[in-house]
Amino acid sequence: MPDDYVPRAEDHFTFGLWTVGNRGRDPFGRETRPPLDPVEAVHRLGELGAYGINFHDDDLIPPGTSASEREEILKRFRRALDETGLRVPMATTNLFSDPVFKDGAFTANDPRVRRYAIRKTLDAIDLGVELGAEVYVMWGGREGVESDAAKDVPTALDCYAEAINLCCEYVLDRGYDLELAIEPKPNEPRGHLFLPTVGHALAFIHELAHPEMVGLNPEFAHETMSGLSFHHAVAQCLWADKLFHIDLNGQVPSKYDQDFRFGAEGLRDAFYLVKLLEDAEWEGMRHFDAHAYRTESADDVWDFARGCMRTYLILAEKARRLAEDPEIADALLTAQVDGLSERILPEGYSPEAIAALRAEPVDLDVLAARGYGHERLDQLVTELLLGVR
Amino acid sequence: MPDDYVPRAEDHFTFGLWTVGNRGRDPFGRETRPPLDPVEAVHRLGELGAYGINFHDDDLIPPGTSASEREEILKRFRRALDETGLRVPMATTNLFSDPVFKDGAFTANDPRVRRYAIRKTLDAIDLGVELGAEVYVMWGGREGVESDAAKDVPTALDCYAEAINLCCEYVLDRGYDLELAIEPKPNEPRGHLFLPTVGHALAFIHELAHPEMVGLNPEFAHETMSGLSFHHAVAQCLWADKLFHIDLNGQVPSKYDQDFRFGAEGLRDAFYLVKLLEDAEWEGMRHFDAHAYRTESADDVWDFARGCMRTYLILAEKARRLAEDPEIADALLTAQVDGLSERILPEGYSPEAIAALRAEPVDLDVLAARGYGHERLDQLVTELLLGVR
Amino acid sequence: MPDDYVPRAEDHFTFGLWTVGNRGRDPFGRETRPPLDPVEAVHRLGELGAYGINFHDDDLIPPGTSASEREEILKRFRRALDETGLRVPMATTNLFSDPVFKDGAFTANDPRVRRYAIRKTLDAIDLGVELGAEVYVMWGGREGVESDAAKDVPTALDCYAEAINLCCEYVLDRGYDLELAIEPKPNEPRGHLFLPTVGHALAFIHELAHPEMVGLNPEFAHETMSGLSFHHAVAQCLWADKLFHIDLNGQVPSKYDQDFRFGAEGLRDAFYLVKLLEDAEWEGMRHFDAHAYRTESADDVWDFARGCMRTYLILAEKARRLAEDPEIADALLTAQVDGLSERILPEGYSPEAIAALRAEPVDLDVLAARGYGHERLDQLVTELLLGVR
Amino acid sequence: MPDDYVPRAEDHFTFGLWTVGNRGRDPFGRETRPPLDPVEAVHRLGELGAYGINFHDDDLIPPGTSASEREEILKRFRRALDETGLRVPMATTNLFSDPVFKDGAFTANDPRVRRYAIRKTLDAIDLGVELGAEVYVMWGGREGVESDAAKDVPTALDCYAEAINLCCEYVLDRGYDLELAIEPKPNEPRGHLFLPTVGHALAFIHELAHPEMVGLNPEFAHETMSGLSFHHAVAQCLWADKLFHIDLNGQVPSKYDQDFRFGAEGLRDAFYLVKLLEDAEWEGMRHFDAHAYRTESADDVWDFARGCMRTYLILAEKARRLAEDPEIADALLTAQVDGLSERILPEGYSPEAIAALRAEPVDLDVLAARGYGHERLDQLVTELLLGVR
Repeated sequence: MPDDYVPRAEDHFTFGLWTVGNRGRDPFGRETRPPLDPVEAVHRLGELGAYGINFHDDDLIPPGTSASEREEILKRFRRALDETGLRVPMATTNLFSDPVFKDGAFTANDPRVRRYAIRKTLDAIDLGVELGAEVYVMWGGREGVESDAAKDVPTALDCYAEAINLCCEYVLDRGYDLELAIEPKPNEPRGHLFLPTVGHALAFIHELAHPEMVGLNPEFAHETMSGLSFHHAVAQCLWADKLFHIDLNGQVPSKYDQDFRFGAEGLRDAFYLVKLLEDAEWEGMRHFDAHAYRTESADDVWDFARGCMRTYLILAEKARRLAEDPEIADALLTAQVDGLSERILPEGYSPEAIAALRAEPVDLDVLAARGYGHERLDQLVTELLLGVR
Repeated sequence: MPDDYVPRAEDHFTFGLWTVGNRGRDPFGRETRPPLDPVEAVHRLGELGAYGINFHDDDLIPPGTSASEREEILKRFRRALDETGLRVPMATTNLFSDPVFKDGAFTANDPRVRRYAIRKTLDAIDLGVELGAEVYVMWGGREGVESDAAKDVPTALDCYAEAINLCCEYVLDRGYDLELAIEPKPNEPRGHLFLPTVGHALAFIHELAHPEMVGLNPEFAHETMSGLSFHHAVAQCLWADKLFHIDLNGQVPSKYDQDFRFGAEGLRDAFYLVKLLEDAEWEGMRHFDAHAYRTESADDVWDFARGCMRTYLILAEKARRLAEDPEIADALLTAQVDGLSERILPEGYSPEAIAALRAEPVDLDVLAARGYGHERLDQLVTELLLGVR
Repeated sequence: MPDDYVPRAEDHFTFGLWTVGNRGRDPFGRETRPPLDPVEAVHRLGELGAYGINFHDDDLIPPGTSASEREEILKRFRRALDETGLRVPMATTNLFSDPVFKDGAFTANDPRVRRYAIRKTLDAIDLGVELGAEVYVMWGGREGVESDAAKDVPTALDCYAEAINLCCEYVLDRGYDLELAIEPKPNEPRGHLFLPTVGHALAFIHELAHPEMVGLNPEFAHETMSGLSFHHAVAQCLWADKLFHIDLNGQVPSKYDQDFRFGAEGLRDAFYLVKLLEDAEWEGMRHFDAHAYRTESADDVWDFARGCMRTYLILAEKARRLAEDPEIADALLTAQVDGLSERILPEGYSPEAIAALRAEPVDLDVLAARGYGHERLDQLVTELLLGVR
Repeated sequence: MPDDYVPRAEDHFTFGLWTVGNRGRDPFGRETRPPLDPVEAVHRLGELGAYGINFHDDDLIPPGTSASEREEILKRFRRALDETGLRVPMATTNLFSDPVFKDGAFTANDPRVRRYAIRKTLDAIDLGVELGAEVYVMWGGREGVESDAAKDVPTALDCYAEAINLCCEYVLDRGYDLELAIEPKPNEPRGHLFLPTVGHALAFIHELAHPEMVGLNPEFAHETMSGLSFHHAVAQCLWADKLFHIDLNGQVPSKYDQDFRFGAEGLRDAFYLVKLLEDAEWEGMRHFDAHAYRTESADDVWDFARGCMRTYLILAEKARRLAEDPEIADALLTAQVDGLSERILPEGYSPEAIAALRAEPVDLDVLAARGYGHERLDQLVTELLLGVR
């Protein structure tokens, strides 16, 4: 069959240094792959057609790097970006690997840890902006508890809010053109994490000092871990105009955080997600926060990266074909999907409109008896997905 | 041992007519208990020490009731309330049992269904207010999909918002003293429901026309079904000043909606929840949205109701004892729980404060090496819970 | 595209009367579809290309049917079978709907209930054999507990085993040509069910008096509810020569029992399952234990039934294509999938063979460094599944 | 209150070197605790009242240890055992940390890996027996897949069986007094593991060459990860006489493998489990396969270890009190728990007995109407658990 699933820069595919550079360590096993030079990552991703590369501060500049080494690292990295045309659209901070953060970063009980966490974050913001990042992602990997006795949740949320407010004020103060995006996760590595879902994070933003600067970085795996629909969560973000960034990968519900290749699990959800983003003509980055299986060699990693992007493109093409399929169009009519756009009271509320509504005849038997044809519709989409229509 | 776990009106325990009146039907089996007369429910709950009783419109006034029968039902019911002193603090609408709502109520694709749903809701609001309800609960039991092709989610959220906005405007227009409380649920009876968690519902409220009138009615079982911490979810509601009502029951994570007796599953979570509500001196109703096992006879139902209230009172006493336990107090100090109240920048953001923060010495080795004593703390709470301290 | 996904009798597709006859009732809503005449079910399934139709005793002969009515029902049903050529390959008993069974059937605490359950089962066995069934399915829908205090599990397993042993002895005594197939399920409608997974049921069989007569009827939804791989479970059944029957449907992990159309959820798992059955040339029935969404009308039900079979046939074709795809063949070689067939000690154990094994050189660095190419392999299968290769 | 929850040797509490020696590394963070000298572990556990200490080969003898160092390590370790009286009741092999095993050990596709795995296992068996172990645990941490294309499951089960058969034959050949115990786990670190539950492993044993030598080592966390009842699983092991060892810890359903302190989560399940083991007078080891939270210092680890044992003893005392509680006894009678011991046909099957059974009158209305009093019973147990009765 013809193959035009070759990524181009305008597809806006990005990867984290920590994703293609993942070394295959897990809770029960040691690293299976050697370290990856960030410069090689840039070149390989460039060859594959990616648009950009993102990093945690420590991914690029390991803790303990001297100022001169830092300069050297940045020089080499910038050169690689220049040679390939890759961008750094997003930056973030590692607030979870160091034992210092074992009780949290922005919500650590020890104020000294919180002070250090904010400082590390501001430094990482500077670094990200220096390299051109326009979105700053905040994943609170250690913000949570195993024992609920150990933290008062409302007070912890106060701390969390203070930290994000300080970051916003710093960004404003420095005049950076940078948006902040919170990445929710329900658990792992902590027993329960604060802001466990897209919803909790969206709600939290409204209590901040600068809600307009803060949005979401939802992740397929994280929402799916709770058995929630990632597609619905992203739709609510779009609805609230808060989708600032997105993390794509593969995950089975109710399991450990798998971070599989996009589409490796949850293919149907992946399809509806791609359809949502493409239909909305969303302009953000399609970032893959995933990594190769631990069974893979250093070379195999690039098959992983290529696969993420190919699956996205295949699904995007299917989304276009769905829109053009006359039988699906007919099934959508049967399901009356267009009926959702109608308003109950197009002119808005008035006592008269309510009185009229209450007076109108309604034949409940007719409404109860009608079928919506969802079985036919869903089967048509299934067959589209399977490539047999 | 002494037993002072006898409920009193001031404990604010309430039950739904549908809870003690649950007849034991489930997806695989027929009813095992006879219908319960609402008047008997009022009397039995009164004897047990409950404060109030709530209902869906159809629980009290079955569909198809004539106007005169309606009056008769209300007269008998009011008399029972008067005789027992029970209140009706909350009301709600059944928008899920009738086949009319099979594709949703406020988000049904067919606008005729949405019109009927709003009308049924306004009638139920009138009925609730007539009986003294101050909170109106909205559970969107059919607002969702099995097949994602069948509904555009952002458009469905528009419909959902329109419906709630109309309710708010109606309440304002009528001058009712009524707050609305959204009850989130992730799935069942639909494959995926909109507003699946406390977080998603909290966030949704901010997009409404009258966000100040709308809050949450979180339910233990619903949040737990997604494996999320109910205690944390309620804490975030309190933090956002949006806890308007609460549904207490028992549930195992990642299972069908069990609605077990409060404390029958999730005892530790139940404890932290009760502690949270009591510590916050939250004034709302402790509503049990649960039902007796299907194995139980009509008489056994009252053991179920008594058990819900007793467990709450037992846990409330443990919360008080935790606060007075010197060894636990010591463990909390070790965990530096009080440290969360300190602000990073007590005076707020300033470039100078940030510069000072960046200049201060930090000994990461010390922070990394310290232990938080959570094992000891958690074990002490475990032993408190088990009644051996 | 060409469409040859039209079911034929030799595909061995079967449905339950209760599946196409499902009326859309759920825990929160009333029936949305009228009753389906079993005779119509036979004709409609015959037209769609199904091989057979199965039933619980009560599906065909409602409780309380008189002897003469029973004869009439059977006569009409047989005539429909004759007219369509449909078979009744399997039969089963409803031991879960009647309130009598609220505490279990074979494991009810009350011996009178157990006596009645065995009696109802023997009658249903007679009825099934009369209509030609060769497999008898046992789903213990009420064999379990909500409160672990209410049943001693080992004693309950004794009861369970006695009941199945009696059935085996009855079958032997009557000279029936009938195999028994246990259908495991983890929970719902009980809090925890006995024999919760394929594994627990397989193990249980070994403790029975006639293990050779008893096998498994694994169900996609039931194993998936526990987040387990249905494909692996069925593979273990085949490996132990215990796959007697199978229930196909769709289900999301860690949710209520959904019984969706085959392939409506879990498409990738469905594919590997079909591949397993087809590669093994398994000769049993492909039974769909699913039902149409509650949104569907009586007519829409047949789209549901058609969809189940089409998806199976589409996936079976993909399984054949996988076997012929040269690039996938190459990836399988890289993954050394053929290496699994080799034995460590082809001649079996001997001290000498072990000594030789221990003496042989092994280069761990080489083994650690090799990649298995699973990312490439999995992506190729993904693309096969999506129909783009 | 009086405290007699002090462990004694006869309580048979054991820990793994890897449990108290766990250094707090997780997928997102580095070690937070220094290495623990096995000799110190022996002494500290001895002081706390433990009976024994277990290990993986690599825990005691790190890979790459020279023969002379090995002797030295063993000498020191034996001396510590002698000084404290601690035993080594169980041994096991690490077949999961080394990158060599990234595609499995006994089911690795590469036969060279399988050969190495069996060799490493036999060496570990020798070491375990040398130190007095009587049970050998087999956890197949890498036996599984992420991509189902990469392994044919029945063939993989053949490999798994060959490996265990070889171990059995080796044990017989050497004349060791050693039983093998399989430890099932559903997933993590692989996407799906073979033998995912207690049931699947129990069933697998029946296909082995020496089923009498092989039993189970069920783990609380592993069964609970699938949302299954650990108590029921262990009961089925006891029922099949296959409980050879047990791993106790704490876990929330449907989450990553938490390995929390026994009782830290799942307190009610823990209680029924302890009750089951104590009622059965099971003589095996109560092994804690858990570790301290990552927040804890090296010293805090011993609070963790003490807590595991204390909670077991507290729950054991509650199990004794349950047996003596007259009100609970009355509730058990109401629930007719004793009725399970009765046989349907005490004399066994005969056509006459069946005919008699079928002829006996049965009043279904009476059976349907009776209540079982499970709400009262469960509430009484809840209050026993909470220490208020």
